[in-house]
Amino acid sequence: MLEQLGKNAVQAQKYLRTASTKEKNEALTEIAKALREHMQEIIAANQTDLENGRKNGMPAAMLDRLKLDAGRIEGMAKGVMDIAALDDPVGKVLKEIKRPNGLTIQKVSTPLGVIAVIFEARPNVTSDAAALCLKSGNTVILRGGKEAIHSNMAVTKIMREAVGRAGMPKDVISLVEDTSRESSMELMTMNDYVDVLIPRGGAGLIQAVVKNATVPVIETGVGNCHIYVDKDADINKAVQIIFNAKTSRPSVCNAAESLLIHEEIAPKALPAIKQKLDEKDVVLVGDEASRKIEQHIGNATEKDWATEYLDYKMSVKIVASVKEALDHIDQYSTGHSECIVTENTKTAEQFMNAVDSAAVYVNASTRFTDGGEFGFGAEIGISTQKLHARGPIGLPELQSFKYKIYGTGQVR
Amino acid sequence: MLEQLGKNAVQAQKYLRTASTKEKNEALTEIAKALREHMQEIIAANQTDLENGRKNGMPAAMLDRLKLDAGRIEGMAKGVMDIAALDDPVGKVLKEIKRPNGLTIQKVSTPLGVIAVIFEARPNVTSDAAALCLKSGNTVILRGGKEAIHSNMAVTKIMREAVGRAGMPKDVISLVEDTSRESSMELMTMNDYVDVLIPRGGAGLIQAVVKNATVPVIETGVGNCHIYVDKDADINKAVQIIFNAKTSRPSVCNAAESLLIHEEIAPKALPAIKQKLDEKDVVLVGDEASRKIEQHIGNATEKDWATEYLDYKMSVKIVASVKEALDHIDQYSTGHSECIVTENTKTAEQFMNAVDSAAVYVNASTRFTDGGEFGFGAEIGISTQKLHARGPIGLPELQSFKYKIYGTGQVR
Repeated sequence: MLEQLGKNAVQAQKYLRTASTKEKNEALTEIAKALREHMQEIIAANQTDLENGRKNGMPAAMLDRLKLDAGRIEGMAKGVMDIAALDDPVGKVLKEIKRPNGLTIQKVSTPLGVIAVIFEARPNVTSDAAALCLKSGNTVILRGGKEAIHSNMAVTKIMREAVGRAGMPKDVISLVEDTSRESSMELMTMNDYVDVLIPRGGAGLIQAVVKNATVPVIETGVGNCHIYVDKDADINKAVQIIFNAKTSRPSVCNAAESLLIHEEIAPKALPAIKQKLDEKDVVLVGDEASRKIEQHIGNATEKDWATEYLDYKMSVKIVASVKEALDHIDQYSTGHSECIVTENTKTAEQFMNAVDSAAVYVNASTRFTDGGEFGFGAEIGISTQKLHARGPIGLPELQSFKYKIYGTGQVR
Repeated sequence: MLEQLGKNAVQAQKYLRTASTKEKNEALTEIAKALREHMQEIIAANQTDLENGRKNGMPAAMLDRLKLDAGRIEGMAKGVMDIAALDDPVGKVLKEIKRPNGLTIQKVSTPLGVIAVIFEARPNVTSDAAALCLKSGNTVILRGGKEAIHSNMAVTKIMREAVGRAGMPKDVISLVEDTSRESSMELMTMNDYVDVLIPRGGAGLIQAVVKNATVPVIETGVGNCHIYVDKDADINKAVQIIFNAKTSRPSVCNAAESLLIHEEIAPKALPAIKQKLDEKDVVLVGDEASRKIEQHIGNATEKDWATEYLDYKMSVKIVASVKEALDHIDQYSTGHSECIVTENTKTAEQFMNAVDSAAVYVNASTRFTDGGEFGFGAEIGISTQKLHARGPIGLPELQSFKYKIYGTGQVR
């Protein structure tokens, strides 16, 4: 069954890859309109998922993530229109090379092709991912979690009918309705039909995909983000940045998880930081040196240095140098976002050049690693791999390219 | 053992990723010098491989590919110096974004990290791949075939000592000396140490890598390249282009394998093309319509349309329209290089926009899909996937990027 779905997606892709900006925007407008018009239908389907969730003892936070109400559906529709308003990334001449033999070589952006998106509980990902893919000329195969299957089916059906009304093949958007582990495995290995697979979810999902996929993957998500307070830091800036990076939204991947402080500034900086974090009851665990400065810091184990808490908890380590901070980050970072707080521009450059992560900050919160905050308009996730896309994946990152070569009979 | 090699490579990468252009060029110069100075040592090691090859009944063509003599080693040294002369791709500011909140975001090119290269019989790949990786700031783990192990060990030892003399950690270049299938499998799944894997070799190797690797892969190589002769083609150009694309070097991936001819021009074009190809005794197999025009064309089976012959053989099909040509290409192409021969610029654009391959030509031989011919200076292979790199993989394609974000205390 999945093979037929893959074939249909490839067929639809032939149409979509040369569709005009106008055609794509009309389809997106139809989708937004349809989401608004069929709000009640979506809410009813979502009720079924919510009831099943409650029956199965789903925790309140997860039920909240699963829930779709009028406000959230309006948000989905608005998100689709925001994407329609973005610049079309397809067909840009990225480079032009003139060769001595008279050949003109144009490097031109093209859609990646068929993108499979495997995601977990949030049903709003359906419209979000579908709109980003459609605008960037990519056919999408959605595969959500079983908890949200009724919501996902309702939203996808509405979107497919909408693109059909706009004159496009419905199969530019499709949903894997079979939520078994087998269907997920099959999708990860459909090399003949899937060009790229993007997993959106927790560490478990990402690892399963990396391990089992034979199709190319863009790895997203896990962020064990560090903030290093240099000896030349402005302590007040450090306090504000750490408080924001840790507590403004602890459950997201760009939240800070680990604090490194230079030993020269630690006796003054750590108490100030701890006092601020106490406002939100952040639990600190640290090394011996940190616990000598602040007795209400717990004992950090080796495991703590590697943990993405996604909670009001943070690890602390006192370091003797920038180099020790860099070595620690090299060892434990997941390559998402790291920050140095310093007034010393030379140290800042040294840190920013040496750290091998998607985003490296001086004097700003790691929470800015986000497509919206970068000015991309929207994103399908944050890549933590180095191949193809790194950091927020916006419309340009959903492009491949090809070379168009203009000759007049040249042979080699 | 391979784990230790991986750890050493990661450690060396910390040094290499911030090495200056001068340091890297000095290391490359030392490598070239050492290859020239140790020519006899390399030739002696190569003799062992050649003797083993002969004992094991290796075919003459393969023995020739395996052979290193003074001329070829000089070629390797010159290749390394050519790469030293290329522009350093690391640390380029690819984009700068100023945000309303005062943040400055720089998108900067960075090395990919640790690149594993799995290759087959040609020992010159060792210096070629090592030099490309070093110049682009990437640590390389080489893994050649067992047929060339003595040559590869000699060349790698010489290169490692040379980079050591230039003051770099030797582990920026290493070789997997165990040529068992197990070591290859281990390398493909070393996600903690390998950032990217590039296979260089035949379809069998590529497929094994795509199937078994859990590390990100850049797929290279297989080219079932098509030439479509449009109804508005200049027949003389078509004849010259097809002759060059098929016969100038049939064993390479950018050689043409399949010929599509519009039915309106076929009665005149096909005999002219066949007459020229007869000069090199090219065997043609075709569909019924082509065999009606030229009786000395064999019968093409379904398998022929999908075959990369890498030989003096070509399939021929008569089509009724550009659309039929495009559909055929969509079905059978490996996404490497395709060409349209036409004087009609509108048809040319239609074809070039619709074909989803790395390189699409109008009126030029597919043999130009090559890093040197594109002006890249050198290449590590031709990518046929759409993620990250497509077409010739030069130094800029061996880069990832990161975002450097300059703040003054911004929080979100």
